[in-house]
Amino acid sequence: MCEAAAYIIRNGKEELFLEDVDIIEPEGDELRLVSIFGEQKVIKAAIQSLNLVNHKVILKER
Amino acid sequence: MCEAAAYIIRNGKEELFLEDVDIIEPEGDELRLVSIFGEQKVIKAAIQSLNLVNHKVILKER
Repeated sequence: MCEAAAYIIRNGKEELFLEDVDIIEPEGDELRLVSIFGEQKVIKAAIQSLNLVNHKVILKER
Repeated sequence: MCEAAAYIIRNGKEELFLEDVDIIEPEGDELRLVSIFGEQKVIKAAIQSLNLVNHKVILKER
């Protein structure tokens, strides 16, 4: 499976925000993330970087 | 491998922009995409949606 873990940068550190992320959709200045298990989270953030081979998404708060 | 194909929406249709994408990094109002083969492309676009399980990234031009 090719889901990824999404981390948010807080105080200069990467904090796990959601595991097993399947879908990411920007909506205005928010991001909607949905995991392969259907868990959904919305955060006021932007994508800082995606690394698909390493299964890692880095978010930064707006 | 978990690379994805990136498509850009033009005239309402999805056009393949870059295959085997590993890394996506927003830089200002541009996106830098790097494939697993090191091919790099920059486009004035935003991420419209990511679907990691389906290996699909949809971009929209700015």
